[in-house]
Formats: sequence, structure tokens, C-alpha cells
Amino acid sequence: MTAPLPVTATLLVGCRDRTGLVAALSEFVFRNQGNILDADQHADRDTGLFFMRLVWDVTGFKLTRSEIAQAMEELAGKLELTWEITYSDRRPRVAIFASKTPHCLYDLLLAHQLGELRGDLVAVISNHDDLRTVAGHFGIRYELVAFDGGKEVAEVQQQQLLQELGVDLVVLARYMQILSAAFVEKWPGRIINIHHSFLPAFVGARPYHQAKERGVKVIGATAHYVTRDLDQGPIIEQDVCRVSHRDDVPDLVQKGRELERQVLTRAVRLHLERRVLIFGHRTIVFS
Amino acid sequence: MTAPLPVTATLLVGCRDRTGLVAALSEFVFRNQGNILDADQHADRDTGLFFMRLVWDVTGFKLTRSEIAQAMEELAGKLELTWEITYSDRRPRVAIFASKTPHCLYDLLLAHQLGELRGDLVAVISNHDDLRTVAGHFGIRYELVAFDGGKEVAEVQQQQLLQELGVDLVVLARYMQILSAAFVEKWPGRIINIHHSFLPAFVGARPYHQAKERGVKVIGATAHYVTRDLDQGPIIEQDVCRVSHRDDVPDLVQKGRELERQVLTRAVRLHLERRVLIFGHRTIVFS
Amino acid sequence: MTAPLPVTATLLVGCRDRTGLVAALSEFVFRNQGNILDADQHADRDTGLFFMRLVWDVTGFKLTRSEIAQAMEELAGKLELTWEITYSDRRPRVAIFASKTPHCLYDLLLAHQLGELRGDLVAVISNHDDLRTVAGHFGIRYELVAFDGGKEVAEVQQQQLLQELGVDLVVLARYMQILSAAFVEKWPGRIINIHHSFLPAFVGARPYHQAKERGVKVIGATAHYVTRDLDQGPIIEQDVCRVSHRDDVPDLVQKGRELERQVLTRAVRLHLERRVLIFGHRTIVFS
Amino acid sequence: MTAPLPVTATLLVGCRDRTGLVAALSEFVFRNQGNILDADQHADRDTGLFFMRLVWDVTGFKLTRSEIAQAMEELAGKLELTWEITYSDRRPRVAIFASKTPHCLYDLLLAHQLGELRGDLVAVISNHDDLRTVAGHFGIRYELVAFDGGKEVAEVQQQQLLQELGVDLVVLARYMQILSAAFVEKWPGRIINIHHSFLPAFVGARPYHQAKERGVKVIGATAHYVTRDLDQGPIIEQDVCRVSHRDDVPDLVQKGRELERQVLTRAVRLHLERRVLIFGHRTIVFS
Repeated sequence: MTAPLPVTATLLVGCRDRTGLVAALSEFVFRNQGNILDADQHADRDTGLFFMRLVWDVTGFKLTRSEIAQAMEELAGKLELTWEITYSDRRPRVAIFASKTPHCLYDLLLAHQLGELRGDLVAVISNHDDLRTVAGHFGIRYELVAFDGGKEVAEVQQQQLLQELGVDLVVLARYMQILSAAFVEKWPGRIINIHHSFLPAFVGARPYHQAKERGVKVIGATAHYVTRDLDQGPIIEQDVCRVSHRDDVPDLVQKGRELERQVLTRAVRLHLERRVLIFGHRTIVFS
Repeated sequence: MTAPLPVTATLLVGCRDRTGLVAALSEFVFRNQGNILDADQHADRDTGLFFMRLVWDVTGFKLTRSEIAQAMEELAGKLELTWEITYSDRRPRVAIFASKTPHCLYDLLLAHQLGELRGDLVAVISNHDDLRTVAGHFGIRYELVAFDGGKEVAEVQQQQLLQELGVDLVVLARYMQILSAAFVEKWPGRIINIHHSFLPAFVGARPYHQAKERGVKVIGATAHYVTRDLDQGPIIEQDVCRVSHRDDVPDLVQKGRELERQVLTRAVRLHLERRVLIFGHRTIVFS
Repeated sequence: MTAPLPVTATLLVGCRDRTGLVAALSEFVFRNQGNILDADQHADRDTGLFFMRLVWDVTGFKLTRSEIAQAMEELAGKLELTWEITYSDRRPRVAIFASKTPHCLYDLLLAHQLGELRGDLVAVISNHDDLRTVAGHFGIRYELVAFDGGKEVAEVQQQQLLQELGVDLVVLARYMQILSAAFVEKWPGRIINIHHSFLPAFVGARPYHQAKERGVKVIGATAHYVTRDLDQGPIIEQDVCRVSHRDDVPDLVQKGRELERQVLTRAVRLHLERRVLIFGHRTIVFS
Repeated sequence: MTAPLPVTATLLVGCRDRTGLVAALSEFVFRNQGNILDADQHADRDTGLFFMRLVWDVTGFKLTRSEIAQAMEELAGKLELTWEITYSDRRPRVAIFASKTPHCLYDLLLAHQLGELRGDLVAVISNHDDLRTVAGHFGIRYELVAFDGGKEVAEVQQQQLLQELGVDLVVLARYMQILSAAFVEKWPGRIINIHHSFLPAFVGARPYHQAKERGVKVIGATAHYVTRDLDQGPIIEQDVCRVSHRDDVPDLVQKGRELERQVLTRAVRLHLERRVLIFGHRTIVFS
């Protein structure tokens, strides 16, 4: 259909806004014979910060990857910027944390199988055995980490697994457990969660029952990075769908499921394409 | 284009669910030679309540309006139902409360001029003189009720005006003032307001700044009936639009304006077509 | 979560509009001690036709199913109406025709497994063996009907299978083959297909390439009943998503896939809940 | 609320893709002490073409505007690119062509009044007198160019008016007349039109009646540049809304109106912010 994609470098940069940033970065690529395929930038007026995403074809690039890293270090010192570079031939490794609910898991596994994700699903990790056959069907390793010895012990096991597997990204696909602050802090900007969202927001238990009682006309889902503030991490993607008085609680739950899996998979896709920069409590999504 | 609409009766009914309700009501219409044009009903499983909207052509109906009222009283006694009937040749009279912001006002005035509303706009009432020419352009009476003597005095004047004008519905088109509980209670289910909504919800001042800081990907608007609980009345209509990091606060405000006017006008349209039944904290919208 | 649903009858009716229809039908249910759970009707002004969907709880209903059928026959003669009745304890039997593309198939199988469909998937029938493991994973029978002997022979085999399996509905989940007119006519209103839709529409091959060249900003999908007019049968459900110049053809294809499976599954759900009435070239969807 | 926007230059560039383009252009800005506020680019894989939009603050820029033009000419020769530059202190001048339908006109006039458009509405030109008071209300000049002497004569008058008024962009706000090929060719990429769109598309008269008969579930609107191919020019913006069997033709028309004005105003906004590049039959919209 289309020619195979060339190997590319994707550079994400953030710094205080100042003149010459776009020029300095693009000139660096040009001087070393890289062809820029995609360049996107955002200068935030309120905070005076600058963000850039630069993708170039590294075929025939004059610098090796370690030379690029070294050159970027120098540039970073001079321009006071933070940066991160990834290469398309080093696919991020993804672990999915699941529990008993299959819908988000299926969606991610299918997207992966269809070649829609720019990353490799290396394992499904769960505190229950319910979804083992689902992972198996897609040929993905399944690891049961039971909570028999308590959450703390389980988290140690999970961390070991992630390390052994060389995981870059953890996706909570309706995991239903709250990760400890210690766990979360080891994976800054590397854990994605999905939760339902409502207008207005509901606190407390059984949100779909509350939504029903309140007669809302739209329900939503939000995918976000996990931070210590539960469900308050930087938002990657959101979407909503219409509901009416005809929707009983099970209908709302079903529509919510449909939203959750779409929004979560889209967020994972955006992350894996390195389109998301985190910036304080929010994200910049170059889509 | 299409034939003129016949004069119709619209009956809204609510009661505890029991067998025979649809039959009893439709049989009443049939026996008296009315042709049912639209029938919609909802049996709420959780609460065991029943709601119905019945529209019929009254051309050639055997009962006069007072006889209908009497018959309904009897039926209501027998079936323990609450009811309300309106006729399409008695157009509801609508007053708009506005302040200085014109966008929602224009939308309602234009919809009215285009013949899209099943009601008559009889006056724009405002605490400022800014929008007088807007009302004038559409040939609508404009009443300035200044707040010089305090809100209490102003509300007395407003109530007098509404009474003199025979108003059925008050629409707050970005009125920016909080009506007193006393005022609100005189107009149960007869005041519609519009406000912005966010996922997650923000409390406190400057919500668009908060939305910007939080990096939300959708913003929304909610039209609702006004009750004593500020912004917490039964929801009539909601909608959202997508936003991104490229939207500055003024962009968010502009997109919010666009949403507000659409959602408010749709809600007013639904109310005037008698499609909305209020039921506790929520609505049933037969659309 | 919620109480089990009672056994219900769902009656679909169509006829020329005339007074007394709602009364006659609801009175019939009431007189025999059925409780109406849902009633929806539509009087089409242009054509003067009337349509109704009536759902009632048959627990304690005074008539047996054959007595109901007899009574409906009489009513049908008197009121000149066409009718169809189904009972919720007789779940429709569904066969999926698939080819090599898995996304729509997975969506239907998962919805079925999650208990979201009011019908039983009894078989996946395909002209290729590619998706056998998918069906197997969900415990659904898989039948390979190869096209080695030509389409005509294959269609005979397919028909036999459908008959043996007692199938009520055939869903073409990206089946990629055109059914013969003879086949289609044996299943009026019983075959659902999904295809992509564009604004403007494109004729000829490679529509996604055409969409790309034309620079469309939205792409869509349409689920419809299959008739002799290819892709022109009565529409059940449609939806769209936004695209931009950044979407290459593979991106468009991926977004199209996402739409196709959502729209097809929603259409199947609506059909199985008996919410769709066919009426000439169009449908009435009581949702 | 927010600080006043600085004077900016917006450069739009198109050429065959080659290495060094981003670097050359951004370096040009940097070397002359311009601060890049926004940079967006697109390399089209299929055609091998490259497009860029570059916005920079010209406060303190070392070159005058004529020097910039000269420098760009040189760069254009060297890199074989086409270019266009505009400055934010030279607001584009917009004329609206209208007929008798007011909804799109109001929307544009209100957006203008609210300061949402980066351009000046200088005149409403119409072949009827119906909308004179609408223009007058917003303080906009109204010019009646009647068709008494035939369309050819009228177009000469229209052209003279546009020239006298120094118009940059013509917006057809439900103008209902087909401009001659000669007229259109004098305004390449400078005339924006709005029309309804359907899935599937309908040819011939009375599209809303056809949509009703076909039972479509979504209707749409498309804003596009006008070319000799009627309604086939490059698409700027599209959107849709859901409809159902309950929508009569007048309801469809009303929902269509709502869409038309939103989509047209959004397209005009995008054009005036110089976010749209035309490229063969399609556009690239940097939004």
C-alpha cells in the first residue's frame, strides 16, 4: 500500500521561550543531513515556555546515536532545554495491568495485532487469572501477581517483572487497584490510566447511579498519566457520548465501556508515537 | 413546503406505574375522536414511575377545553396522576433576562425570527442598557431594570413586568446575576439557565483559566432549570466540543460561547415544544 | 446490579394512519392484563403511515402466544395493519459472515460475550480459514465455506447452514463478497452490512485514496440492510469522525475500521432489540 | 484579560520536499532577530510536497517589509518555493455576498462584532434588499446589486465594488447564485462557499426531501473554496449532526441551517488566520 516507513528520530524538547530555538534545532538536523519529516512546536503565552517535536529521517545522518546524544547535551547546556530522543527502530515495550474486565484489554491487544501501535505489548500482568486466555489468544505473556501477601509485596513482584521485561510504559486497562505513591513515582509519565468522567463530576461510589439520578445528557472518559493525585494526573485524551433518560444504569455502563476502550487506546497510541509532552499538570499533544 | 400544522393538544402525565395507563389515556383521546399524532412514554424501572407525552389533533374533538380539563381531573383522581395540558394555538410567552453579553440573546432572537421557536419572545429584561439596540433590531420590547435600589427592589420590578406581560418562561441568556430563592420558587420549572461545564468540574473563579491550566481536551455547556441549588437544577441539554493546547483562554472562551448559545437555544426549543418533564432532580426529554 | 428483566413481548406494527390505533393496541394489552413497559410510535406526515413499537410484560398475560397471534390476526384484518411479534425468551440466532479482516468480528464477539447483545451468535461463516481461531477463542462455531466451486455452489451451502442453525439474522462483518440477488431476497430485512461513507461520496475503487486526494475533513460509516441495490438498502445507523491532512491513507483506514466496528455493532444491537422498522427505502429506529 | 497580540508576520510556503527547508526558513527569521511564535509544517508523503506556516513577532525585526519580500524572492529562487506573507496589522478586507436567507450572515456579523474574526467586514453585497437592515444593525455597508440587467452586468458591478473596497476575501453566505467561471477565476482561493452535504450524496433538486426519503441518520455541511467546478472546490471545513425519523423536512432544514452557519464561520476564521493552504484539489489546514 504505502512504502515502509524509514527509521526516524523523534526529539521532544522543552525550555523557556527565546529566539532562535526552532532555527537552532532544525539547523542541527539539516547540517548533519537529516530530512525533517515532521516539526511541531508550541509557545505557551501564559508561562513563556516553548515545546517542540521534531521528527527526521536518520538514513544517512552524519552522526551516530551517541554523537547525537552528545551534541544534544551541548545544545541543552547552551539553550537550557530538557530533551528526550527516541528512534523508531527501538519500539517501546508495553505492559498492561488488568484485573477482571476484558474490554480495554481486548481493544489494546487487537490494535496491537492489527499493527496500529508503535510499540510491543510484552505482558499482561494481573491480580486475577480471569484474563489469561485472552492474553493467550493474542500470544501475549500473562503474569499473575496475586495480592495474597498484601499489596506491598505484590508491587515488589510487579516492579521486578517490569524490570526483567524492560518495560517502558505501563497501561492500566481497568486495573481497579490504586498503585502506591512509591510505585507511581518510579514511573513518572510512564503509566496511563482510564477513568469515566461526568458533567458535572460525581464524588463517591457508584458514579453511574449518580449520573442516572442526576439525569445527565452526556457521559465521558478521560485517559491520563498516573501521578500521586489519584485521577488528577495530566490528561492525554477525553471523549464523550450522548445518553438519555432511556438509558438504564446497565446501558450507561455499556456506553461507558465503549468510550473507555476507545479513549484509552487512542491515548496509548499518542504516547507511543511520542506525541505527548508533559508540562506540569497538563499535556501538550501534537496530533 | 409542508402543510400548516393542525391545532394540537399536548398532555404531559406523571404517576406511579400501573397497568392500563397507556390504554386509559389513549382510549380517552380516541373515544372523543382525537387523532394521536405523537405518543411517547417512559417507565422508570428504578423508581417505578411512569411518564407520558401525548399529542393529538383537536380538530373535531368532541370535548371543549374546559370539558377536557374536567375529564382529566376525574382521570387524575382515579389513576392518581399529575398532568398538564397545553394547546398549540396558545403560544407560550417568553421573557429573556440578559446582561451585557449578546451571543445567547442573538441566537434566541434569530431562532424566533426564523420561526424556529414555538413561543413568542415578549421582552428582553436587563440590568444594563447595552443590548437595547439588539432587541430593537428584532422588534422586541426592551426593559431596563437597574439594580440601583438593590437586587430585592429590582426583583419586585421584574416580577411585576413578568406578570403584566403574561410570561410563561424566563430564559437567562448569560444574565450573570443570581436570582433570589424567593424569586426562583415562584417559577418552578419555568426558568432556564445556561452555564459552562468541564471534565473535571472546576470550582471557584475563572473556570476557563482553570481549564487551560488543567489541559482539558473537551469543554462543555449545560442548560438546566433554575432551582434554589445554584447550577444544580434538572439538566435539559448538554453538549461539548474538543479543545487543545493551542487554544488560549480567549479561544476557550470563544468556543464556550459557541456552545452556550447552541445548547441554550436547543433547551428553550425543547421546553417550548413541551418535550421536557421534570422529575425530582432530573428531566425526561422526549426528543 | 439490576433485577432480571421479565419476559416481554415486542410488537411492531405498520399501517395507514387512522384514529384509534394507539388506543386499540394498548387497550388490547391492558384488557388481557399485560403491563406496557415501552411504547413508541411515529406518524409519518408525508406518507400518512403509522408505526408503533409496543413492549409489555407477559407475566400473567391472559392469552397464550398462539391466542395472541390469533387476536392480532383479527385486529390486523380490522385495522389493515402489518405486524410482527417477538418474545424476549426466544433469543434471535445470529450468523456472522466474515472474510479475513478481524476488527468487526472481534467487536461483535466481545459484545456478545459481555452480554450486550439480545441474541445468540451461533456461527461464524467464512470463505477463508483466517479467523477460525478468533471464533474458537470466543467458543463460537466456525464454518468454512470455500468458493472453490464458484459462488453459486457456496451460496447453496451457506443457505443450508443457515437453515440447519435456525438463523434469524445474518451480519456481514467485512465479508467483502457481494451476495447474489437470489440470496438477498430470501432474507429481506435480515442481512446487515457495514460500509464506509464519505462527504462527498466517491464512486470507484480505493475510496480512502480518493478521500485523501479530495482532502475531506470527516469520514463516515453506514450500517444498512442488504437489498438488491448494493450499499443502497435502508440505513440503520451512521457515524463519522474527523480527519485532517496529517492522516495518511493508512491512518484513514484505521479510523475507518474504528468507525465500522462501532457502527455495525450498534446496528446489530438495535436490530436485536427489535427497535428497527423497515419502511420502503428507509428505517424507523425507536432508540 | 490577555496581553495585546504583537504585530506578526505569517509566511505560507509550498515546494517540493527537500532537506534543509525548515532550517533555511527558521534560520532566516532567527538571523534577523524575529521570534518564531508558531511553526507548523507538513510533508506530504504521496506527492513529495512540503508545506509550512511560520508566524513570527516582527517587533525589532532587522528587515523592513520590502526587504523581507526581496529576501524571500531570493530564497524562493534558490529553493524553488512559492510563498505568501501577510502581516497582522494589515487586516484582510472581507465582503459577504448574501441573498435573502439571514442565518449565515448574522453569524458572521456577530463573530465580527465580538472581535472573533481577524479581518474587517467591509460590505454586504446582495441581489435583494431583504437583509439591508441586518447589515445596518451591525453598522456594515450594504450594496444592492440587482440582476435586472442580467447576471453579466451585475458581475461587472460586483467586481467594481470589490475593487473599490479593496476586498481580499469574498464569502458566499447562502448567496444562492452561481458565479460565472470568469468571476471565479479572478478570485482564486479567495471565495468561500457553504453547502449542505449528505451521506450518501444526493444529486438533483430538494436534497432535504431526498435525505428524508432515504432515512439518513446524519446530515452535514461543507465549506470550500469556489472553483469552476461547482461545489467541488478544496474543502476547508466540514461537520455533521445526527437526525432521526422524527425530523420532518423543516426540522432537517433547521438543523442544516445551524450546521451551515457554524461551519462557514469556522472556515472564514481559519482562512483569515492564514491557516489554510490550497494544494491542488485539497487544502492543508494548520489548526
